[in-house]
Amino acid sequence: MQIPTNHTSLSTTLRNRREKLTNLINFPAILWSGSPSIRNFPLNTFPFRSSSHFLYFAGLPIEDAAIRLEAGKLALFMDNPPPSNLLWHGEIPTRDRLAEIIGADAAFPMSELKSHAQNSATISVQNPTTKITQSQILNRDIFPSNKPQEIDLELTQAIISLRLSHDDTALTEIKQAAAVTVEAHKAGMAATKNAKFEANIRAAMESIIISHNMTCAYPSIVTVHGEVLHNGEYYHPLQTGDLLLADVGAETTLGWASDVTRTWPVSGKFSPTQKDIYDVVLAAHDRCISQIKPGVEYLDIHLLAAQVIAEGLVDLEILKGKPEDLVEMDAHALFFPHGVGHLLGLDVHDMEDLGDLAGYEIGRERSSRFGLGFLRLNRPLIPGMIVTIEPGFYQVPAILNDLEMQQKYQNIVNWEKLEYFSDVRGIRIEDDVLVTTKGAEILTQELPTNTDAIENLV
Amino acid sequence: MQIPTNHTSLSTTLRNRREKLTNLINFPAILWSGSPSIRNFPLNTFPFRSSSHFLYFAGLPIEDAAIRLEAGKLALFMDNPPPSNLLWHGEIPTRDRLAEIIGADAAFPMSELKSHAQNSATISVQNPTTKITQSQILNRDIFPSNKPQEIDLELTQAIISLRLSHDDTALTEIKQAAAVTVEAHKAGMAATKNAKFEANIRAAMESIIISHNMTCAYPSIVTVHGEVLHNGEYYHPLQTGDLLLADVGAETTLGWASDVTRTWPVSGKFSPTQKDIYDVVLAAHDRCISQIKPGVEYLDIHLLAAQVIAEGLVDLEILKGKPEDLVEMDAHALFFPHGVGHLLGLDVHDMEDLGDLAGYEIGRERSSRFGLGFLRLNRPLIPGMIVTIEPGFYQVPAILNDLEMQQKYQNIVNWEKLEYFSDVRGIRIEDDVLVTTKGAEILTQELPTNTDAIENLV
Repeated sequence: MQIPTNHTSLSTTLRNRREKLTNLINFPAILWSGSPSIRNFPLNTFPFRSSSHFLYFAGLPIEDAAIRLEAGKLALFMDNPPPSNLLWHGEIPTRDRLAEIIGADAAFPMSELKSHAQNSATISVQNPTTKITQSQILNRDIFPSNKPQEIDLELTQAIISLRLSHDDTALTEIKQAAAVTVEAHKAGMAATKNAKFEANIRAAMESIIISHNMTCAYPSIVTVHGEVLHNGEYYHPLQTGDLLLADVGAETTLGWASDVTRTWPVSGKFSPTQKDIYDVVLAAHDRCISQIKPGVEYLDIHLLAAQVIAEGLVDLEILKGKPEDLVEMDAHALFFPHGVGHLLGLDVHDMEDLGDLAGYEIGRERSSRFGLGFLRLNRPLIPGMIVTIEPGFYQVPAILNDLEMQQKYQNIVNWEKLEYFSDVRGIRIEDDVLVTTKGAEILTQELPTNTDAIENLV
Repeated sequence: MQIPTNHTSLSTTLRNRREKLTNLINFPAILWSGSPSIRNFPLNTFPFRSSSHFLYFAGLPIEDAAIRLEAGKLALFMDNPPPSNLLWHGEIPTRDRLAEIIGADAAFPMSELKSHAQNSATISVQNPTTKITQSQILNRDIFPSNKPQEIDLELTQAIISLRLSHDDTALTEIKQAAAVTVEAHKAGMAATKNAKFEANIRAAMESIIISHNMTCAYPSIVTVHGEVLHNGEYYHPLQTGDLLLADVGAETTLGWASDVTRTWPVSGKFSPTQKDIYDVVLAAHDRCISQIKPGVEYLDIHLLAAQVIAEGLVDLEILKGKPEDLVEMDAHALFFPHGVGHLLGLDVHDMEDLGDLAGYEIGRERSSRFGLGFLRLNRPLIPGMIVTIEPGFYQVPAILNDLEMQQKYQNIVNWEKLEYFSDVRGIRIEDDVLVTTKGAEILTQELPTNTDAIENLV
C-alpha cells in the first residue's frame, strides 16, 4: 500500500471526522474494512476495496482491519503480516506504523477486538466473510446495511450526516479523480478515429486511469448501445453513424470517485438528428446545474430536467402537448427513464450500501411513479455535497415497444416523427457538481459538453 | 454476454467433455457458476468470474446458474432475467436460448434444482453466498474445495483427470490468450522509453488486453522491485539502471488464461551484471523447456532449473561449491525460492481452488525443503498438459538478510561478489508450454527472450 506523503494532514482530517461523530453518538462504533474477494481460487483475488465507512474514518484501505471509535479516539485493530509475507508481498507497514500514519490513539492485534466490542454499533459490510466476523465479534445479529436497527441505525444516520458534506481532504481527492476522468474521456474521443470496436475505446480510456495508478470507480460503460443503461459489453463494432456513449470514472487510491458521461459520434460529426436531441439533453444538463445551490430540492432539479427534455421534444415534434402536462403524466420518462443523478463521494453512488437511507431525507420514500421511481437522491442540497447531473435521452425497445406504454402515450408521442431520430439510441451527458455556499462548482468542467468542442476532440 | 459465433463446435466439445466424465463417475454431479462479488455496494460488483469447473462443462460464464451432469446429459438451471432488466441490461439470452447454445439436454428454472439434487456430488465454489446455496440445495455439508469428501472427492478426481489434458477447443482459447499476452508485453516494452512510473507501463500492457475485450487472468505484476514475488504496487518511479519485471497475462471471454513474464531494462540496455544473471535465468528457462515431453516428472524440470541456476551462479562466483551439492542443500533457493511453474488452463494456476489435489499426483505431498516447498506441480507430464516454465533470480532482503540463512550459507555464498550484482533485484522469464506427444510447443514463443531482441523492443 502506498502511504500518502502528506499524512499529517490526513491524520488531522481523520481526527476532525471522528470528533464530529462524537457530537452525534454517545456509544462506541466499530467499523471493519473487509477482506479481498476471491476470483477463481484463493490466491487470485479481485483488487481489494475497503468498506467506504471504514475508509472515511481510517483513511487508508487496510485489509482485514477494524477501527473502534469512541469519544474522538480511534483504536486500530489488525494483525501484522506473518514473516512468510515478506517473500511474496515485501515489506508491508506494520500495525504500529499504520496507526501512526492515520493518527490512531491505540493499536491492537485482532484478537483484542472482542474484548473491546461491548455495546458497540457497527454497519454491516458487503464482504460476506467479514459480515460473519462482525456478528461473532459483536455477539449479536447484524442487519443488512440498508436496514440497520437501534444503535446501528443511529450510527448510520450520524455517518450519513457527516458524509453528505465533503471536507477539504475529500474534495482534494475527488478533484484528482475528476481530473484523471476528464483526461480519460479526452483519450477516448481521440482514440475513436482508429477504433473498430467499443473495447478499443474502453482500453484508451481505462489506460489513462491505470496509468495514474487509479482504478475505475465502477464498471465502465463504453457502448454504441447507450439505450442499455448499464451496458457492460464492449464487443460491438463501431459503425459510421453510431453515437458512442462512455460513462467512465476514476477512483483514487484512497477510494474517492468521479463519474462522468459523454456521448460522441463515431464518425466525428453529429448527424442533424443527433445534434437536435443532443442539444435538448445539453439544455437540461445546463439548466439543472445553473439551479444548483444550497436549499434547493434535488427532486426539483430532476423535475427541471424532465421539463426541459419535454420542452425540447415538443419543439422537435416528438412529443405533443404542454410540457408541464407531459411531465405530470411521465411522458418524459419514455425517453429519460432514470433519475437526473445521485450523491458522489467514496462510492460512485455515495452510501448506496445503505439503500435509500443516505439518498432520501428521513421520512421520504421512493415514488411509485414511472418518471420518479428511479431517482436515487431526494434531499435538499447543502454546501459540500457533490452530486452528479446526468440527464439523458434513450430509445429503449423495452419501453417504446411495450404495448401498454404505446397505448397510454398513443396520442402524445408522434411515432412517425420519432422514426426520423432512429440514429439516436442513447445520449447522456454527466458531470460532477459540488454544491457551494455561492451555488455550484462543476468539478469536471475541463471536459467540454457542446457538440462543436466534442467534434474537435474526436 | 457475447455468444461465441462457433457455438456448434462449442456444444460438441461440451458433449465430449461430459461423455468422458461419464466414464469416470456413476453418480450425478451439480456444478454452480457463482454470483458476482460485491465491491462497495450491491449494484457495484466486480466483473463476474464463473467457477472454472462450471465453465469447463457449461462453456459460457452464466451468472447464478447451475448444471446437472449425469450419464452424458446436461441440464441447465437458471432463472430468466426479470423484465425490469431490459431497461438496465438490455436483451439477455433466455434460459432456452442459452441451453440451445451450449447443447443442453434440458433446461429448468432454479426452483427445480432441489428436486433434481438427490445424491449428487459437487465442488465447493469460492463465492461465499453461492457456497451456502450449495449446502441448502444438496441438503448436506459441503467441504472446502481443497478437502472434498466421498463422492465430492471422486468427482473432483474425475474432473482433474479431464482438465489436466486440454482438448482442441481449450487450446484454441489459450492460444488466443497467449497471442494477446505477447502483444501486451511488446506494448509494455515499447512504452518504457516514455514511462515515468510502473503504472504507466502497466497501463500500456493492460490496455492491449482490454482492447481485445479480454480481462487480466490475475493481478498484473509490473514492478522495478521484482524481488517482491507477488508485488501488487505500481507507484514506484522508473530509474535508469532499474530492471522492470512484468508478469501479465490475458484471459479470454470464456475464461482461458495465459501467464507470461519478461524482465527488461528501463534504460533499454542491460548492464553487464544484469546481462550475466539474465543469461543464467534464460539458460535455466531454455534447458527446462528442452526437456519437456510426456513422461518426464515436473519435479525433475524444477530440479533442472535449480541445477542450471546453481551452475550459473558458480560460474559468476556468487556461489561456491559443486552445483549438485548446492542444489542438495537448497542454496539455489536463496535466489530462486519459488517453483519453476504450474499448470495453466481455465485458472492461471489451474485448479488451484482444489489445493494440491490437481498439482500433486495422488500420494505425493509438498516437500518441507526450502528449495522445493513452493513447487505447485509435482506430476509426470502428459500430452495436452500446459505448464508454465518460469525460473527466476531474486535478491530478497527477507532471505538474504536473515541471520539464520546467512549462517547456514556463510561459506557458500560469496557475499562480497554478490554486492557487484546489486543492480539485479529480480529477474523472471516465463512462458506457457504445451506438452505434445513429440515434446513441447511454446505457446508464447513470439515474444523473444534473449537480451538483444528485448533491447530492440524496449
